[in-house]
Amino acid sequence: MMTTATDQLTADGRLRHLLTLQGLPRDVLLHILDAAAGFVGLGDGESKKLPLLRGKTVFNLFFESSTRTRTTFEIAAKRLSADVISLNVATSSQSKGESVLDTVQNLEAMDADLFVVRHAASGAAHFIARHTRPHIAVVNAGDGRHAHPTQGLLDMFTIRQFKGDFAPLSVAIVGDVLHSRVARSEIHALRTLGVHDIRVVAPRTLLPAGIEDLGVRVCHDLAAGLQGVDVVMMLRLQNERMKGSLLPSAGEYFKNYGLTPEKLALAAPDAIVMHPGPMNRGVEIDSAVADGPQAVILPQVTFGIAVRMAVMNLLIGGAA
Amino acid sequence: MMTTATDQLTADGRLRHLLTLQGLPRDVLLHILDAAAGFVGLGDGESKKLPLLRGKTVFNLFFESSTRTRTTFEIAAKRLSADVISLNVATSSQSKGESVLDTVQNLEAMDADLFVVRHAASGAAHFIARHTRPHIAVVNAGDGRHAHPTQGLLDMFTIRQFKGDFAPLSVAIVGDVLHSRVARSEIHALRTLGVHDIRVVAPRTLLPAGIEDLGVRVCHDLAAGLQGVDVVMMLRLQNERMKGSLLPSAGEYFKNYGLTPEKLALAAPDAIVMHPGPMNRGVEIDSAVADGPQAVILPQVTFGIAVRMAVMNLLIGGAA
Amino acid sequence: MMTTATDQLTADGRLRHLLTLQGLPRDVLLHILDAAAGFVGLGDGESKKLPLLRGKTVFNLFFESSTRTRTTFEIAAKRLSADVISLNVATSSQSKGESVLDTVQNLEAMDADLFVVRHAASGAAHFIARHTRPHIAVVNAGDGRHAHPTQGLLDMFTIRQFKGDFAPLSVAIVGDVLHSRVARSEIHALRTLGVHDIRVVAPRTLLPAGIEDLGVRVCHDLAAGLQGVDVVMMLRLQNERMKGSLLPSAGEYFKNYGLTPEKLALAAPDAIVMHPGPMNRGVEIDSAVADGPQAVILPQVTFGIAVRMAVMNLLIGGAA
Repeated sequence: MMTTATDQLTADGRLRHLLTLQGLPRDVLLHILDAAAGFVGLGDGESKKLPLLRGKTVFNLFFESSTRTRTTFEIAAKRLSADVISLNVATSSQSKGESVLDTVQNLEAMDADLFVVRHAASGAAHFIARHTRPHIAVVNAGDGRHAHPTQGLLDMFTIRQFKGDFAPLSVAIVGDVLHSRVARSEIHALRTLGVHDIRVVAPRTLLPAGIEDLGVRVCHDLAAGLQGVDVVMMLRLQNERMKGSLLPSAGEYFKNYGLTPEKLALAAPDAIVMHPGPMNRGVEIDSAVADGPQAVILPQVTFGIAVRMAVMNLLIGGAA
Repeated sequence: MMTTATDQLTADGRLRHLLTLQGLPRDVLLHILDAAAGFVGLGDGESKKLPLLRGKTVFNLFFESSTRTRTTFEIAAKRLSADVISLNVATSSQSKGESVLDTVQNLEAMDADLFVVRHAASGAAHFIARHTRPHIAVVNAGDGRHAHPTQGLLDMFTIRQFKGDFAPLSVAIVGDVLHSRVARSEIHALRTLGVHDIRVVAPRTLLPAGIEDLGVRVCHDLAAGLQGVDVVMMLRLQNERMKGSLLPSAGEYFKNYGLTPEKLALAAPDAIVMHPGPMNRGVEIDSAVADGPQAVILPQVTFGIAVRMAVMNLLIGGAA
Repeated sequence: MMTTATDQLTADGRLRHLLTLQGLPRDVLLHILDAAAGFVGLGDGESKKLPLLRGKTVFNLFFESSTRTRTTFEIAAKRLSADVISLNVATSSQSKGESVLDTVQNLEAMDADLFVVRHAASGAAHFIARHTRPHIAVVNAGDGRHAHPTQGLLDMFTIRQFKGDFAPLSVAIVGDVLHSRVARSEIHALRTLGVHDIRVVAPRTLLPAGIEDLGVRVCHDLAAGLQGVDVVMMLRLQNERMKGSLLPSAGEYFKNYGLTPEKLALAAPDAIVMHPGPMNRGVEIDSAVADGPQAVILPQVTFGIAVRMAVMNLLIGGAA
């Protein structure tokens, strides 16, 4: 079940849900980035709190557990003065045999305004969005291998902050593309924003079939992939991948695909290094790079709050 | 240990705790329903948030886990601007060997205003209410097989919204009455509000001895029980019941006691169907009924927030 | 890794973090107690809520689970109008292999203002404090056997409320000193505040080597230890201690070191009895004492909220 752009846009082209970056029009994408810019730097002032979502109720509906992602949405919602209820659905009514739709309809009946949905199944957020009441918005916080649009947006925001114009950039996405919803969201957004040189660097076993159809160039050699790029987007290698037959060992992976200072030297001198976290130091990235001057991994986190505030406010704020 | 009405009323007859609907005077019950009416429809306005409990501290004290019930109380408290702390006590101090009373007294000492108590033992909320400090109120959110008064109240609110006057109504309560604190609370409230024709429909194995003493008529046949009723209150059949010797099988149960459109056709044409949730579709209720035009199951959820706001505000609000 | 006072003070001697009471100057300690006094009694007024930390974000970072301690910090932060995010880190990113420092740096990047840290390893809060950004403060909420400074502060606050001047007091600390971070914090604070007669009462197996070097007198006999004291500070005997070889049995321990009314009669007639909770009634303390007129155990809890509000406000409030 693939999501189409029309599912998340109103008839007049405004954002109704945020389900995927695939097919999201360039002007909507840029509008979100511009809105996010207004929320950056609030953390430095006296109060980080804005009354924009006061009286609204946001449900974090996590069918798959993720403390980090849940926390970022919780902070973003609280900074906008919304009431936030976080439900780890895996451990609640679901175990009593209730269907996803019954759970969602119950929360709707409690006057929800926004669902932030994380689910192990691709298309889950989309399914929920299709069945919600008209005034309720849905944000996909990661569904299976499909999409993780707020991560893609914060990555675009980060690139724009450090690199400005997208068109002339060369970008390498390195690692486990096969299992990564982050990679998919990044590729869609980069294409939409006009990046021509997108390279995907991974061993054959960690690349999905037909990835070239998304408009990227495949490299199996890290050195070739990094040559002259302006942006290196590392992917997390999940531990369970290292136990199966896809990879020989973590050490072997690091030797071939781990980002070290030596490898990074092949990129442009002012290239930035990104990672969605949590990092596996010594597996996909060397600590010297992760903590080095080219890493923008912590700014990604900071911008992630601003981007989520922007998305929430666009979806259910008074100005939407 | 049965609770008497005097435990939850002040000397001059006002609500001090909400522990049970048994013996709760008709005027107090109606006062709660009237107060709840004032909180319905807030969800449609710009802000659902009222400052009535600002600065108050509400503790959700769940000795038995229930995400759904906890969530409704949490939302109700937050909409009244209270601070809410939810404690899953089963997994905390209790495991360090502390007594229930020590846990409660500790929270009292942190300047609690209201305890919402869920416990597997009948009488637990009552026990806590007896030992709290004078200014602290207790709401029973379900104790063993004994009572679940806010569920009973929201059911009465729902009936009144859809049916108006209680006296002329015929009501059927269908299902696992034996293990249901909801059924007990419903029967007490219906009697207090003047309903004469209350029918309890269940197999012999799921009926407590002496249930007729509560003023209800027992039917073992669903068709007879539903004949001409205005309100059908379905009960949840807990999965564990189907594994023991009380019931032959879920399929057999559905055949005899499951509410299908055909069975429902025996009731009055404008009969409403209620369920406390979460539903076991295909066990006690058919999806065609659950999602059909006579179901008021989602309005029950919406009214449940309003009823809990009303109870909390009556107990610890400034106007109490 | 021991903490020194300079780690938690600014160059001009103000509180920067709260990591330990060891070496904390007398004037800083008294300043916290004075500030806490301003927060006592708020619970009796109409609103317990103050806007002092509005717009600030407090993270409860619990690498070791403790519902009770987490709750006290959560309440204190909410009463100061801060946004509070509680993370049970043991069950989140840590299990994905992320380092403590990566976790902390991520939360910093989300514009945190204060970390409340609980960790099973001594020195953990100190380690985090050393690596935080300049504007972020850290409160140690218990690290291994090392320190639990807010518990020590609330104990001092309680003693001052009931006894006034510290200098002339005789104080007995009774129980499992070996495993107690509370005892260490208490001893440091009592010394700083000028108490000369501090007695530590425990069996040899529950006393650390060299405890006398902290300036206390060791008693192995409870009667001798309690003789004429003004303050009895009981320690919790953790259940797991009773299973090992350190103690013969809970019954034997109670016979020798349990505080009964008879034993308490050896203290000064107006002696107060303290306990950090949760209590093991019938093990280290008799219920007749725990619930008796000399116990100030529940006031300790109440003062604990005020002390934590004072610490948080001093660290990140506008007036800090």
